[in-house]
Amino acid sequence: MSEFLELLPPQQALETFLAQCQLSPKPETVSLQDAIGRVTIEPTVAPFQLPSFPRSTVDGFAVRAADTHGASETLPAYLTLIGEIPMGGTADFELQKGQCAIIHTGGMVPAGSDAVVMVEYTQEARPGEIEILRAVSVGTNVLQPGEDVGSGDEVIPAGTWLRPAEIGGLAAIGHTHVSVAARPKVGIISSGDEVIEPGNKLSPGQVFDVNSYSLHSLITQAGGEPVSYGILPDDAEAFKAAAERAKAECDLVIFTAGSSVSVRDLTATTIDNLGQPGVIVHGVSVRPGKPTILALADHIPVIGLPGNPVSALVIARIFVTATLDKLLGLRTSRPKAAIPATLTINLASQAGREDWIGVKLRQTGDRFDAEPVFGKSNLIFTLANADGLIKIPAAANGIPAGTLVQVELI
Amino acid sequence: MSEFLELLPPQQALETFLAQCQLSPKPETVSLQDAIGRVTIEPTVAPFQLPSFPRSTVDGFAVRAADTHGASETLPAYLTLIGEIPMGGTADFELQKGQCAIIHTGGMVPAGSDAVVMVEYTQEARPGEIEILRAVSVGTNVLQPGEDVGSGDEVIPAGTWLRPAEIGGLAAIGHTHVSVAARPKVGIISSGDEVIEPGNKLSPGQVFDVNSYSLHSLITQAGGEPVSYGILPDDAEAFKAAAERAKAECDLVIFTAGSSVSVRDLTATTIDNLGQPGVIVHGVSVRPGKPTILALADHIPVIGLPGNPVSALVIARIFVTATLDKLLGLRTSRPKAAIPATLTINLASQAGREDWIGVKLRQTGDRFDAEPVFGKSNLIFTLANADGLIKIPAAANGIPAGTLVQVELI
Repeated sequence: MSEFLELLPPQQALETFLAQCQLSPKPETVSLQDAIGRVTIEPTVAPFQLPSFPRSTVDGFAVRAADTHGASETLPAYLTLIGEIPMGGTADFELQKGQCAIIHTGGMVPAGSDAVVMVEYTQEARPGEIEILRAVSVGTNVLQPGEDVGSGDEVIPAGTWLRPAEIGGLAAIGHTHVSVAARPKVGIISSGDEVIEPGNKLSPGQVFDVNSYSLHSLITQAGGEPVSYGILPDDAEAFKAAAERAKAECDLVIFTAGSSVSVRDLTATTIDNLGQPGVIVHGVSVRPGKPTILALADHIPVIGLPGNPVSALVIARIFVTATLDKLLGLRTSRPKAAIPATLTINLASQAGREDWIGVKLRQTGDRFDAEPVFGKSNLIFTLANADGLIKIPAAANGIPAGTLVQVELI
Repeated sequence: MSEFLELLPPQQALETFLAQCQLSPKPETVSLQDAIGRVTIEPTVAPFQLPSFPRSTVDGFAVRAADTHGASETLPAYLTLIGEIPMGGTADFELQKGQCAIIHTGGMVPAGSDAVVMVEYTQEARPGEIEILRAVSVGTNVLQPGEDVGSGDEVIPAGTWLRPAEIGGLAAIGHTHVSVAARPKVGIISSGDEVIEPGNKLSPGQVFDVNSYSLHSLITQAGGEPVSYGILPDDAEAFKAAAERAKAECDLVIFTAGSSVSVRDLTATTIDNLGQPGVIVHGVSVRPGKPTILALADHIPVIGLPGNPVSALVIARIFVTATLDKLLGLRTSRPKAAIPATLTINLASQAGREDWIGVKLRQTGDRFDAEPVFGKSNLIFTLANADGLIKIPAAANGIPAGTLVQVELI
């Protein structure tokens, strides 16, 4: 496993990798209350039309439109009031020529009526007789049955990331539960003789495990279920045992190596020996994150992340999230939320390599400035100080100050 | 409680409302694994500097920089190899003039050494002697103690929304738990004689409760804990009892009324009588969402949302989210994620009123078009079909086709 024989651009590395993965979601049923952010696994079809009956959109009087023709403030139409439509029920009458009935917003327009006059354009002439001060046409202030969706319409396709609007839609057609992709289990294998669990006492030369925790959060956020396999010693047998357990128990396995070359080599060898076809991509032309490994071990995707905390997060945003999207069966990838901002200084970059730079946003009125936060990729608080990341594409050798850039929120 | 005496612009309505609210977060301690998306309640101070020791950023040899001066491929410096620095430990030697030691990325630079030469720029002359092929200056390839953060530095302010980077940072300084704002309890009171729970059989004239479910999701997403108080009948006593229970049990109370005028009136009266000072804003110059109520009942904020599903969600995005941000003690409001896109058609709007329009995004290469999704505000699937919302400001009477607009993702 020699490193970096050929560095692939990140997008090409991702496509090469995903093209070889056969990933599909596993089903699980959740209540609507637990459905936010989950991904549908089958299309939802409306079992009936919406609205299911002609519905008034205003408070007023159900009428026959023809009866109001020519009505005006000076020459009202006079209609006989025959009753009131109960909310949540049906009228016990059919409206005849010359008649009207009280109706509320959301009420069912009765048989015989084809329009509603707003209460503001009416007045009571005398008990039982209503003056209509404005003409309406057929359908005015009425939602027609099926105007939202028709019976049998596919209302939510499979692979949809559920937001409040979709969850409201599912309730509207009577659903209390929805079939979604189970959260993919993502095994996190940490390593490095210098790395120890937070909460312990740090001896000189030791550092706390950062990547397990930042990745745990990122995986949770992206819809996965993180499973921790602890911090491995720099030992081939320990690596093999943990990798095999994670491969058997998870849908995706992530290595976040200690930073020494021996642990990096051990990671690469362990991943390559874990199953067929083994390592697909080793080395990506991106900074930070060059030593990324993308592999497939007997249908289980395996990703080796760089050891540096910032590199690990930047790379996980690109590769782990996209792999999770596939495991969740997302129909289209979620649009990456971004804020347009003006770059405050010139940024240089090496052509042929994609660079990701942390920036802080400074707001002035409606506008934002993006101020790069510099720091070595070992410095986690560099990233904690950033509001987002900007990409310098491989084709560019920098971005001049004053350019409007898209800041991807992190 | 007469409606709509004066319509306030949304931003002004929000400021007027929040200025009267004295909201503050309640503390709760969570593990780092559960901390994603939570909001810190106190500043975090680094208990020690990071890195806590001089760390090599590369694999190579720890040296004294002065010993490498003038070294080149043709005229290497020769240094005596005296040992290897163990990962996670300290060297048992101090480097003297003319000596070097093997060091790994992340290893502790030993006493007496002030720089590291990358392994690529060295070769073994004979056992125990290393050729240095390139000169380094003091500090080259070494992270200095405190370069990330100093001991006692405030690393994460109170009121910070925790992302993977902050959670990694907390782990880096040894924390396993973090003190965050407890999720504010948000009572949802639904009403309307025509509204029934999904899962039941729909009779003619009835509709399923949409808003309880969409709001439940939105509140969860925004960091709150929704508490449902069911669907009330159109009855003053029932309204009063539910409102008082919700006020006693929750940090924020939301009414999502049935759409008839009698339920709307009942909602307004109930809210105004619930406590001091009562209704602060009644009616906002926004579409959809004009009949919004913002009130304060003895220190508990109360929001009356419009009954239409789309209006309820659009208004909740503005007012419920901002109130939750205050209850969570957020230092700065989260930047609203948006995608810049080109509007495909002319949009007209009434000057003096802020309009929110659902749009679908269509991607062509790196660019997006925003295509408005039209539909009455009663149609929940109109919003489910939209990727986001665009705002037509009150000062504008429309937006011409071809304008670059910001699409706020929903």
